[in-house]
Amino acid sequence: MKQTSSRLADGREIIYFDERDDAVHTRIDTRDLAPPPQPSQLRWDPLLEEWVAVAAHRQTRTFLPPTDECPLCPSTPERATEVPEYDYDVVVFENRFPSFAPAPASAGEITPLTPSRAGVGRCEVVCFTADHDASFASLPVSRARTVLAAQAARTAALAELPGVEQVFCFENRGVEIGVTLHHPHGQIYGYPFVTPRTRAMLGAARRRAGLFGEVLAAERAAGVRVVAANEHWTAYVPAAARWPFEVHVVPHRQVPDLPALTDAERDAFVPLYLDLLRRMDRLFGAPMPMPYISAWHQAPVLVDRDLAWLHLQLFSPRRAPDKLKHLAGSESAMGVFVNDVLPEEAARLLREVVP
Amino acid sequence: MKQTSSRLADGREIIYFDERDDAVHTRIDTRDLAPPPQPSQLRWDPLLEEWVAVAAHRQTRTFLPPTDECPLCPSTPERATEVPEYDYDVVVFENRFPSFAPAPASAGEITPLTPSRAGVGRCEVVCFTADHDASFASLPVSRARTVLAAQAARTAALAELPGVEQVFCFENRGVEIGVTLHHPHGQIYGYPFVTPRTRAMLGAARRRAGLFGEVLAAERAAGVRVVAANEHWTAYVPAAARWPFEVHVVPHRQVPDLPALTDAERDAFVPLYLDLLRRMDRLFGAPMPMPYISAWHQAPVLVDRDLAWLHLQLFSPRRAPDKLKHLAGSESAMGVFVNDVLPEEAARLLREVVP
Repeated sequence: MKQTSSRLADGREIIYFDERDDAVHTRIDTRDLAPPPQPSQLRWDPLLEEWVAVAAHRQTRTFLPPTDECPLCPSTPERATEVPEYDYDVVVFENRFPSFAPAPASAGEITPLTPSRAGVGRCEVVCFTADHDASFASLPVSRARTVLAAQAARTAALAELPGVEQVFCFENRGVEIGVTLHHPHGQIYGYPFVTPRTRAMLGAARRRAGLFGEVLAAERAAGVRVVAANEHWTAYVPAAARWPFEVHVVPHRQVPDLPALTDAERDAFVPLYLDLLRRMDRLFGAPMPMPYISAWHQAPVLVDRDLAWLHLQLFSPRRAPDKLKHLAGSESAMGVFVNDVLPEEAARLLREVVP
Repeated sequence: MKQTSSRLADGREIIYFDERDDAVHTRIDTRDLAPPPQPSQLRWDPLLEEWVAVAAHRQTRTFLPPTDECPLCPSTPERATEVPEYDYDVVVFENRFPSFAPAPASAGEITPLTPSRAGVGRCEVVCFTADHDASFASLPVSRARTVLAAQAARTAALAELPGVEQVFCFENRGVEIGVTLHHPHGQIYGYPFVTPRTRAMLGAARRRAGLFGEVLAAERAAGVRVVAANEHWTAYVPAAARWPFEVHVVPHRQVPDLPALTDAERDAFVPLYLDLLRRMDRLFGAPMPMPYISAWHQAPVLVDRDLAWLHLQLFSPRRAPDKLKHLAGSESAMGVFVNDVLPEEAARLLREVVP
């Protein structure tokens, strides 16, 4: 895999990940772009003891453009997009409407109980393919493997940036999830703090030594919620799943993050994950693109790396062909999830999909 | 206000709250109903250390029926609904598809790390009016006052039930929130545990004495996020709001829950809240029903009642007339909220609505 780094017209970095070592990228972004906006402002919520990002500039971000105006497609002689080249394998670039971005550290206060600071960090877009109409599930193994390598490389790179304390690689798929661009892509966030979910999991792991390994062993022993497995990975519906269809894909070895995976582990992940995504799209019989969030839970950059255990959380709010699970009062206001699908039943349905 | 308790055909309790003291309710539910389903199963998530409810029977619950099949309208000579009477003011009854319901306590385990127990508790529906086409915002002050009295009475009643540890009164409004019945109604949950959000807030209050009062005082002093106020209540957009439009309505006195409010406090709440809801519906110019969640945060039944401070959290995911905020990867997988609307701007817009 070859990496080539360049800059867009407004100074944002773009990095090509090529499957051929002789790939060359020299095209220049000729657009007349305004400078990138300020990053968000972080505000401390004293009642829940969490940072909230306020990013007012994102209200104007590109929203479901027609295909012939897609900013993630390669450029053509007639139209300049976010990617200056006329073709690419996998390409990563800084988000034009970032929640977190490089900035001088700063501190202020909104009220005496709500300190604020700049949303220092980084937000990147990862285009999985130049093919606008593809999906992650439709990628060949070789391309999905390149995406994984790119995510690992960017995780390592973002961890080196000033202020970044956790790196999050994810894909939002489907308008039901709020996706604003259809072109197959994921995102990478470099957060300037350890996220609330990660803090909660690390707290649990601190209180019970070996927690993640015990959960994995228990699911493998029970078997009834396992959807797929191979030598290096097990995919299962967690016993206390919050979402109608939720699968955790967990490596058999405790590793903190994607860069720490061996080549053999990466090679083993890709076909298992592609199979899982294809099962999701076939869950209700005829092919039906499943809205989903696919989230890599990685160790923080600076702390508790010995406690963390890398895993992928894949989940969908679709509970029936024509029904979504909404996060209403109980979930959104109180944090109590009510799941309408039995985890064992979700696992059985996923196992029994006829591809 | 007069309360009359009765039973539906399958044994569920129904309670009428009448504004006239001479109201009589004697109509019998003549439907042939199957017995109520088992309650949900609670499963312990060892990674996040939270209970999750699994309620598979709710998949078959009534979903957006046509108006002439509404189960919350009064019955007619031709059609029996959930409410046997031909008219009512406010009526509360046990949910036919409950997440939590009375049951013998039980304990089991899904895996050695995921203990389970019965979802003991109670779920009630609160019909605000017999008028199918009304909304909370359109209620007269007298009716909204009766709803508040009913919520307070039910909070006190549910707190007495075996196993109930927290009572949650709320309204989900709008199909965007996942509402499955259009008739104006709210819900009351009696949870068999203290909810995650409440645990987090009480933890913060324990670590900083006087926290809630300090936050209220700081918002009143700053003023810029205050939307409305009167002698007993202040309504403000919190400095670290998570949602595009989020307002907290807080009493000026520390009270644990609705039953503890004085008559004067109740009287003062109603017009302020109705004004707020009407502003929400007019936020984008022409009247446009705002999807929202309205959530009363009350003290737990058994513990930490001295730490809690009752407040209402009203929030909408609508960030523009044609756009919703979705909880995508950052919010749903990591717990990090990115708010696209500046809280000071949200407060200004709400203040400037021309009713």
